[in-house]
Amino acid sequence: MTRVRFHQSLEDLKEKLLVMAGMAEQAIQRAIEAYRVRDLSICDLVDRGEMAINRFEREIDQTALDLLAMEQPMAIDLRFILAVIKINADVERVGDSAVTISDRVRDLQAFPVADLPVDIPRMATLAAAMVRKALQSFIEADAEMAQSVLSMDDSVDKLNGNAYFSLLNLMKQEPQMTPQALHALMIARSLERVADHATNIAEDVIFWVSGADVRHHMSVRNHNESQDSQ
Amino acid sequence: MTRVRFHQSLEDLKEKLLVMAGMAEQAIQRAIEAYRVRDLSICDLVDRGEMAINRFEREIDQTALDLLAMEQPMAIDLRFILAVIKINADVERVGDSAVTISDRVRDLQAFPVADLPVDIPRMATLAAAMVRKALQSFIEADAEMAQSVLSMDDSVDKLNGNAYFSLLNLMKQEPQMTPQALHALMIARSLERVADHATNIAEDVIFWVSGADVRHHMSVRNHNESQDSQ
Repeated sequence: MTRVRFHQSLEDLKEKLLVMAGMAEQAIQRAIEAYRVRDLSICDLVDRGEMAINRFEREIDQTALDLLAMEQPMAIDLRFILAVIKINADVERVGDSAVTISDRVRDLQAFPVADLPVDIPRMATLAAAMVRKALQSFIEADAEMAQSVLSMDDSVDKLNGNAYFSLLNLMKQEPQMTPQALHALMIARSLERVADHATNIAEDVIFWVSGADVRHHMSVRNHNESQDSQ
Repeated sequence: MTRVRFHQSLEDLKEKLLVMAGMAEQAIQRAIEAYRVRDLSICDLVDRGEMAINRFEREIDQTALDLLAMEQPMAIDLRFILAVIKINADVERVGDSAVTISDRVRDLQAFPVADLPVDIPRMATLAAAMVRKALQSFIEADAEMAQSVLSMDDSVDKLNGNAYFSLLNLMKQEPQMTPQALHALMIARSLERVADHATNIAEDVIFWVSGADVRHHMSVRNHNESQDSQ
């Protein structure tokens, strides 16, 4: 494989990961739309979408492995391919969270519609934006943008904490609402998990771009340093 | 680096991952012990342990990256190193789950001890056993043992489902117990998540050993096929 073709393969890998991330983000949006309008046909779409996401995950891993095996890439490309492999795993789990939400929506169908003190669509918009921005920071190799995803995670955690206490109070005061409140709580938790995956992705981007390991929320100051300085 | 030294480095990598996995498993056991006896000093141990686990994670990733960059390993070693990188991420998240449980134990301290219809220690024992067995299957390169971890996941899911309904009923019937019941439910969910990480590890082991991609719970029949047949 020539260098030109090798770099084309890296671009293809990135492209495939982006398509898959778009599918995962759409899965979250669909699951929340299913929750909002209580339409189980949308849940079916989420389930079918997950199978497609799983296929993408396998293809991306295999392509990445082939590139590593055949091309013996240099440090900078190696770091990129490893980032793809790690981001791939987190994107796939975003798809899993969409299915978890969709299952909850199905269970909710057995109970009357309730006006619950939690803004699930708002949490979902924020979590989906984190996934999108994390991937965007990957395309643009922008460690600062990735860093901003880490800050967004605090907002989701806060919304989730508020949801917990509001729903807890509702359950204590109106025990007959417990099933619906509990399902909403679990959906909120799944969205928090989506935000965690976006955070993991952003950390991998920072690791890739900067060569500095900022996982576990260390600050990123040196992202312009040489890729190979570690 | 000679081949002998290279293989020694792979062994060191495996050894480090095992030590870290032992720490993660201990963190879960400690968090559950803290829950059982309501001892917050054990929660502090869990938090300190997490920092050590995070350091191990970074060291393992860096060593794996160095080996890939300097040694240009052949397909079989490449697959092993990629398995280490993926398993590393899941083991670190087991440590995160222990901290989540430990945080819940701290929150629980504000409420009177309650006799809850959920056997958290039993779920924890099962989830920790899954992590241990998944790592064991990695040491022994045993895809069948890894496959047995996937079956154990069903048991944890079932226990978790039962816990959900028992605690839901308790909350409906005795609303004043809602805070304790909700914390227990969240601890059960964290243990389910630990089991999910063990499942991910087992799937990575199967991928590494067999060259067949059995993620998403496809059956493993061809694990004796050539490593490079895909």
